[in-house]
Amino acid sequence: MMKLSTLCYIERGGCYLMLHRVKKQHDVNEGKWIGVGGKLETDESPEECIAREVMEETGLTLVHPRMRGLLTFISPGWDSEYIFLYTAQAQGELTQDCNEGDLRWVPLSDVPQLNLWQGDRIFLDLLLKTDEFFSLKFIYDGDNMVYCALNGEDITTKALGETK
Amino acid sequence: MMKLSTLCYIERGGCYLMLHRVKKQHDVNEGKWIGVGGKLETDESPEECIAREVMEETGLTLVHPRMRGLLTFISPGWDSEYIFLYTAQAQGELTQDCNEGDLRWVPLSDVPQLNLWQGDRIFLDLLLKTDEFFSLKFIYDGDNMVYCALNGEDITTKALGETK
Repeated sequence: MMKLSTLCYIERGGCYLMLHRVKKQHDVNEGKWIGVGGKLETDESPEECIAREVMEETGLTLVHPRMRGLLTFISPGWDSEYIFLYTAQAQGELTQDCNEGDLRWVPLSDVPQLNLWQGDRIFLDLLLKTDEFFSLKFIYDGDNMVYCALNGEDITTKALGETK
Repeated sequence: MMKLSTLCYIERGGCYLMLHRVKKQHDVNEGKWIGVGGKLETDESPEECIAREVMEETGLTLVHPRMRGLLTFISPGWDSEYIFLYTAQAQGELTQDCNEGDLRWVPLSDVPQLNLWQGDRIFLDLLLKTDEFFSLKFIYDGDNMVYCALNGEDITTKALGETK
């Protein structure tokens, strides 16, 4: 089975809006800090999905969402997931309780200190370093990244070195 | 149901490698000219899929594939399809019979004269005009495009004007 989803890092005042996933049952992301997003509904484009998910989870209205990359996320025991990765600005205030976890504005420099997926460090770094669209494939064994490819090229050794 | 696939326009000597879809049963693309590609297999990244499909269908080895856009293709009676759109070069000669249709190198300037999906004219134009990654959503009613959005913005009226 495969799953299509969106993931957005909303930037404001040098911070990303990070979601600490501590509320959902049977959550592959349990305990991790990630961006905001969710699963595509029938016939939705990625842009429609991310605008809806951000509104539902945060009460914010997305502004200038930009698809920055595509993540292929493989983890045994979970559906293969294809994730459209966005950065964006947003208007409004965080008004709603998020039922997926705790929301917090985190300074960009503090993000690497959070409990992240190993591979997330790779794309968070790319988001800051390049304007080029990228495609990353990650294979995990539980919490351990065992394979990483950037635009089809195996970069596992380099990626493991950078994310230890 | 949703379907994930890849589509590649291979460029060589001012031509695109175009596939005339005349061989498959129950083919949403029947009679149309499109690029080469196909459905993602389990756990494949888009890059793995497009390299495999191009080899299977054409015998060519992809070089420098670049994901240029994402297409959301909605057509009643068919699965919603999310298409990773590539341009690339390729090495080798067209050595294999393609079981999906007839392959032909078509000069870029002649491509618009082919029997194309209306919306394909929009992205083929964007591929030539911009280096920016784009996301396009098309809704069709049979052969007629009834909705088009570019990066989340409704451009239906403009798109219908350009593709008549």
